Amino acid sequence: MTTKVNEYAVVPEGSVTTPKGFRAGGLHCGLKKTQRHDLGVIVCEVPANAAGVYTLNQFQAAPLKVTQESIAAGGKLQAMLVNSGNANACTGQQGEDDARSMREACAKAFGLAEHLVGVTSTGVIGELLPMPKVLGGIEKLPSQVKADGGDDFCQAILTTDLVKKEICVSLTVDGRTVHIAGAAKGSGMIHPNMATMLGFITTDAKIESAMLQKLLNEVTDSTFNMITVDGDTSTNDMVIVMASGLAENESLTPGHGDWDAFAAGFRHVGEYLAKAIARDGEGATKLIEVSVNGADSREAARAIAKTVIGSSLVKSACFGADANWGRIIAAVGRAGYPVNVDTVDIRLGDISVLEQSRPVRFDEDAAEAYLKGELVQIVVHLNMGQALATAWGCDLTYDYVRINAAYRT
Amino acid sequence: MTTKVNEYAVVPEGSVTTPKGFRAGGLHCGLKKTQRHDLGVIVCEVPANAAGVYTLNQFQAAPLKVTQESIAAGGKLQAMLVNSGNANACTGQQGEDDARSMREACAKAFGLAEHLVGVTSTGVIGELLPMPKVLGGIEKLPSQVKADGGDDFCQAILTTDLVKKEICVSLTVDGRTVHIAGAAKGSGMIHPNMATMLGFITTDAKIESAMLQKLLNEVTDSTFNMITVDGDTSTNDMVIVMASGLAENESLTPGHGDWDAFAAGFRHVGEYLAKAIARDGEGATKLIEVSVNGADSREAARAIAKTVIGSSLVKSACFGADANWGRIIAAVGRAGYPVNVDTVDIRLGDISVLEQSRPVRFDEDAAEAYLKGELVQIVVHLNMGQALATAWGCDLTYDYVRINAAYRT
Repeated sequence: MTTKVNEYAVVPEGSVTTPKGFRAGGLHCGLKKTQRHDLGVIVCEVPANAAGVYTLNQFQAAPLKVTQESIAAGGKLQAMLVNSGNANACTGQQGEDDARSMREACAKAFGLAEHLVGVTSTGVIGELLPMPKVLGGIEKLPSQVKADGGDDFCQAILTTDLVKKEICVSLTVDGRTVHIAGAAKGSGMIHPNMATMLGFITTDAKIESAMLQKLLNEVTDSTFNMITVDGDTSTNDMVIVMASGLAENESLTPGHGDWDAFAAGFRHVGEYLAKAIARDGEGATKLIEVSVNGADSREAARAIAKTVIGSSLVKSACFGADANWGRIIAAVGRAGYPVNVDTVDIRLGDISVLEQSRPVRFDEDAAEAYLKGELVQIVVHLNMGQALATAWGCDLTYDYVRINAAYRT
Repeated sequence: MTTKVNEYAVVPEGSVTTPKGFRAGGLHCGLKKTQRHDLGVIVCEVPANAAGVYTLNQFQAAPLKVTQESIAAGGKLQAMLVNSGNANACTGQQGEDDARSMREACAKAFGLAEHLVGVTSTGVIGELLPMPKVLGGIEKLPSQVKADGGDDFCQAILTTDLVKKEICVSLTVDGRTVHIAGAAKGSGMIHPNMATMLGFITTDAKIESAMLQKLLNEVTDSTFNMITVDGDTSTNDMVIVMASGLAENESLTPGHGDWDAFAAGFRHVGEYLAKAIARDGEGATKLIEVSVNGADSREAARAIAKTVIGSSLVKSACFGADANWGRIIAAVGRAGYPVNVDTVDIRLGDISVLEQSRPVRFDEDAAEAYLKGELVQIVVHLNMGQALATAWGCDLTYDYVRINAAYRT
């Protein structure tokens, strides 16, 4: 049973192993103090066409370099290894050697060429990986990998996340069923720049790596790159997509009759994961969506949406269900793009609070009730042009402070 | 009794009324719900040469326009009126009319020409001022103004601030004693851009308005513009300086033999107030100072220092006394300026935690003890060039969230 959305459908209970050819698994190797999974892998039956986007933080973590090298070697990946509990970032040459050892061990365990293995890590920055634990875990991974291992994999990538984030859509290409699935982690240090904390997308569609990379770039730009939890861009952000081609469709390009449906399904996966990361931001009680309409450029719309969603004052007002629109307009005014100061409209859901830059009398009780919900939509209309953008984030809460005042301890 | 600092001295208990010619006062007119002062004024015996810097937020509040007009008329101010509890921002034409009415009423009450009066407001955005209360208060102001009214004035400008912020220095110019004093308010929506929330500087030095403006710009750039509490630039930021000239020195210019001492004293006042605002940021338990050394440009040093001080993750780690330097280097890497990723040193006070981008083993207990103090100094050395900059901020605490989750209510 699937739910129809335009030309693709969401697959209930779908995971990264729903697309043909993918298995996954996870286990506890000892990086996390509690008995939770901290090592996971997605494995494909065949070398999958692959593409990736990576953090623009200059202190890029060691595993990202190794993964980029693997994909550069032939545009393919057959296994994607991940550990949580330690980011292997700012760990110098030893960190790079460790990431390579992880790739080597994973390749050996699954009988693959090294350049078909990607590696990624998430957790605390600046500590060396306890390699005996990691390598011991990798040896045991093949026995944990299974066709319904998507859930175990999701568990293995969580740090301060509360819920796992996965989605699968299906669509028809050349009369064949194609799946696109994704899993992600987020929570803290989330202000992606060209990539997000960790995102894994699998598909059984046939599509060349270059085309996959182009689509991933476009989708990342309007989904993962439009979320923020705390304005901090991680050293480890990465989204990887693997396409097994086992759906046996004609190779997808923009000229293909089913391209639009595939691109829409792919975007759905990206947006779903991005919003799930924002909603599960550290300490968050709700998802905040900021839409900026009527801007005179897409660049301006994006910058203003991200400035509003990143404002600590807007975020804490949402936590307190306080319809303090003054903080929203103050953020609009400092985003670095010219706006017409006399033509701004602001709505909180359906409640208009500012029209043509003038305060509107509104029902405070209704506004409070709306802001107490799990989703707060802030709509800003600049009435200047046609460009628009949407950004997602979460409220700023006591729990955010609690979690981050003692992350390492 | 004064404490000698270079060529100027701090005047204990000094206030904005210490410089010759200035009186001040404050009272409760009804804008704040509790019986705290919410209306204040600084008055000078003579028209004082004046200069100001104002927020770059595009939604500049009405009183800022009025103050700019006053100074533009002749470069002088004789009274500076301020109210707290209502920012008179985003209030349209009515707000502008109200700001003009305040100027008119204040001019009348003190028998001054209107263009000698400046007006400023702080508080909630988007609500019209209850003008009968404000005008009633202004009528009573002259009877409240006194030679030792600096404290009353300071009380009148506070909103969520916990402590008043004032300072006075003295120095000798042409054999005469010159004073420079300042008062400020800050607390929330503090991420000044060319000005800060509210700063008032008085001096009895003789100095032309244009020269005063130049000095104010320079000092603002390295003091008020280098602090952040929450990354949000207010609609009402303003720093105003008034020079009575009653010290009767030769007019100060960079060619004057005592210029350097005067500029140093002026900078001391600016830096003291800026740090006081940062330390008293909403919910703050400590002052954080971030110094970036060895950058290849001042612009880069400034941007990196402000990015580190603005990181919610760094701020909450300081609150929790967690020596999580990974968050510091992640902020350095996303500040938008190229750094050499292999040559970064980081110190927390005297405790080295990163050298040449490699983790240093340090005493965690000592680091925790240091971070529990009232002042945390984070020193980043990029080892690239000679440029440096310092920024100030505060920790992110439960109280910040508490205060901002219910500011209007």
